[in-house]
Amino acid sequence: MQETPIAGNGLLSRRLYLRLAAAGAGSAVLLPAIANEPWERGSGQPPSGYGEPSRFARLTRERVGGHPFGPAAGSSSTPLQHLNGVLTPNSLHFERHHSGIPDIDPVRHRLTVHGRVRRPLRFSHESLLRYPLTSRVMFLECSGNSYQNTGAEAPDLTAGQLSGLLSCAEWTGVPLSLLLEEAGMLADAASGWLVAVGADASGNNRSLPLPIALGDAMVALYQNGEPLRPAQGYPMRLFVPGCEGNVSIKWLKALEVRDQPAHTREETSKYTDLLPDGSARQFTLRMEVKSIITSPSGRMRLPERGVYEISGLAWSGSGAIRRVEVSADGGRSWTDADLQTEAAALRPVRFRIPWRYAGAPALLMSRATDDTGAVQPSRDAALAGQSVQTFYHYNGIQSWRVDEQGRVSNAFA
Amino acid sequence: MQETPIAGNGLLSRRLYLRLAAAGAGSAVLLPAIANEPWERGSGQPPSGYGEPSRFARLTRERVGGHPFGPAAGSSSTPLQHLNGVLTPNSLHFERHHSGIPDIDPVRHRLTVHGRVRRPLRFSHESLLRYPLTSRVMFLECSGNSYQNTGAEAPDLTAGQLSGLLSCAEWTGVPLSLLLEEAGMLADAASGWLVAVGADASGNNRSLPLPIALGDAMVALYQNGEPLRPAQGYPMRLFVPGCEGNVSIKWLKALEVRDQPAHTREETSKYTDLLPDGSARQFTLRMEVKSIITSPSGRMRLPERGVYEISGLAWSGSGAIRRVEVSADGGRSWTDADLQTEAAALRPVRFRIPWRYAGAPALLMSRATDDTGAVQPSRDAALAGQSVQTFYHYNGIQSWRVDEQGRVSNAFA
Repeated sequence: MQETPIAGNGLLSRRLYLRLAAAGAGSAVLLPAIANEPWERGSGQPPSGYGEPSRFARLTRERVGGHPFGPAAGSSSTPLQHLNGVLTPNSLHFERHHSGIPDIDPVRHRLTVHGRVRRPLRFSHESLLRYPLTSRVMFLECSGNSYQNTGAEAPDLTAGQLSGLLSCAEWTGVPLSLLLEEAGMLADAASGWLVAVGADASGNNRSLPLPIALGDAMVALYQNGEPLRPAQGYPMRLFVPGCEGNVSIKWLKALEVRDQPAHTREETSKYTDLLPDGSARQFTLRMEVKSIITSPSGRMRLPERGVYEISGLAWSGSGAIRRVEVSADGGRSWTDADLQTEAAALRPVRFRIPWRYAGAPALLMSRATDDTGAVQPSRDAALAGQSVQTFYHYNGIQSWRVDEQGRVSNAFA
Repeated sequence: MQETPIAGNGLLSRRLYLRLAAAGAGSAVLLPAIANEPWERGSGQPPSGYGEPSRFARLTRERVGGHPFGPAAGSSSTPLQHLNGVLTPNSLHFERHHSGIPDIDPVRHRLTVHGRVRRPLRFSHESLLRYPLTSRVMFLECSGNSYQNTGAEAPDLTAGQLSGLLSCAEWTGVPLSLLLEEAGMLADAASGWLVAVGADASGNNRSLPLPIALGDAMVALYQNGEPLRPAQGYPMRLFVPGCEGNVSIKWLKALEVRDQPAHTREETSKYTDLLPDGSARQFTLRMEVKSIITSPSGRMRLPERGVYEISGLAWSGSGAIRRVEVSADGGRSWTDADLQTEAAALRPVRFRIPWRYAGAPALLMSRATDDTGAVQPSRDAALAGQSVQTFYHYNGIQSWRVDEQGRVSNAFA
């Protein structure tokens, strides 16, 4: 049976792939193996209260690191290259803290809603659980994700080390609009601003335009079914879909309705985008359309020539992913990958396409398009017009070079 | 503002609820609290490799128990009453083992496909990862789930203890049809049977009609993004969507294509449905349409009169959930709950509806309908025509009694 490429350098149609894999991936046998492994000879562990991963598949977050100001002001990233599907297990969701993870007693914690409202209100954790809740599967991305690709040289890092400040979960919480309605937000306040404040020692705080906050933001209480983890804001966090992660204030303790932004430290000294003329853009909140091939990816090695599934994640802060194209020849030819997860606003999709690695060098790329028509830019286009000191909101196409030995590495192309 | 009930005993429209909650749930304040909690005064923990739940919200599985034959042949159930959304975190997914959890080295494990095929094949874990994968969010339910509701008296248990042999995850794996195609299944075999065998010490095995297996069954490799947990079959399990959990053979080591079922121990001595005349039904695999209110639910106590969100889960092994009705007066009046998760085949939905507890006794019920038109039966109808010794596949309506003190308990109604 013949192999029909659908784009350059080995990209294949899914239909043909089915016949190709047998020789490389399976080996013929006549009879099933006789049971002789130790785990087939005696009972294993009984059921437990709280499960654990296999000792043979114990993943950890990558690039777990502190900040020059102290170990607690650091981050850790999701090991994207070891995951599949679109969800991130809570234990592997990326972290970014300004003063570490507070150990909050939910009985003592309060959320205050005040400012330009008729009835300032204070909510306990227990009271919020009685409100109508809403659940949605959405990504969260740090504004600094992939910043190491904005430098002069391509660092030899994994997908998770480069772009793992991106995770996805089912978030469940109280719609923010409902709490503001409860507090009687003044009629002319809705075009103004909201300032959210966290109960960590840094008092991390951000201003948010109310037209965004009144959309689909929520006060999140559950993540992937279980109560929020402390690293994600237990007992409650703001979740602002589609926007840079730092506005989804963790350990949320106050929401103030205002006429103007507060111009806090976190939106003046950082989280702004410096322009070549020395001025800076503020409040560039929405995350752009983006994708990354997670397998094969940086620092992997293909064990042999043959067929592999290229797979990765695509997402956009502006809507749903409509299309992901893949190239194996550095962008000379492209073809559409399968979008394997159903597309929904702010939900990442898993894309997949089979590829034959014939031993020749290859340059693998993915390019996402969202349902507003926005297309992920090349690296050059993503960096154009910014100061060289700017590294937030980088969404350029990720290229992975595969060499003759099957080694995969980050490449600027 | 007036409160308009939409069914008996306090069921409310979502729209009106918004105004009702303020008095009970929030308390008026003039200014935000001054930062004085210990966690606001100093840095917390730095980022970590693998995250943990809060010490204030440390959930465990319920009814973790062994079998008379030994502790390793037991089960544990998901604490449904503490979760929200539809996903189950992997650490809280229900377990049922016949000889405990084997500690399998994936490098040594093999999956053999043989029987009525042209090319018997043996697959390593690594080779399966190169095949085209597929991801879907689906429930898994033990055939014995809720069996304690088939007895003579209603046991005073939690939602998780009664019906927590039901969990939901995003499963990612290789379509089973693809592996059978690779092995060259004989043309006349597709109407026959498949026997799946596990690598645990019990050699757990089940026969499956190929018309079901060729549908959307997969050899699952990932669960909620990360590699399968050992308790769920690491490094690989069969996943047969919509069917009783025990056919989704964990630690899968062999698939044999046959003309006839094997009539193994697990499909003769148990997992059959005894009829009053002493005969038994075999291979009643598909799980029926079902729902359960998870909050308020058994052994909870409502702290005061006021408005609460009634919420729960509904699922069906035959398709998508189309409708969930809720009653607060023991079935005299019903109204539709909001289906809060998008409906998809074999994906549970979270349903929600606000309810005012006025201090009078109430009997809360939910009734699911799937897109084949199947309606969840009453307890009496679910038990009709079965032997009293039958306890598999029970899907009768769950009733929760709320008394004048706000105590919630299991009720047969």
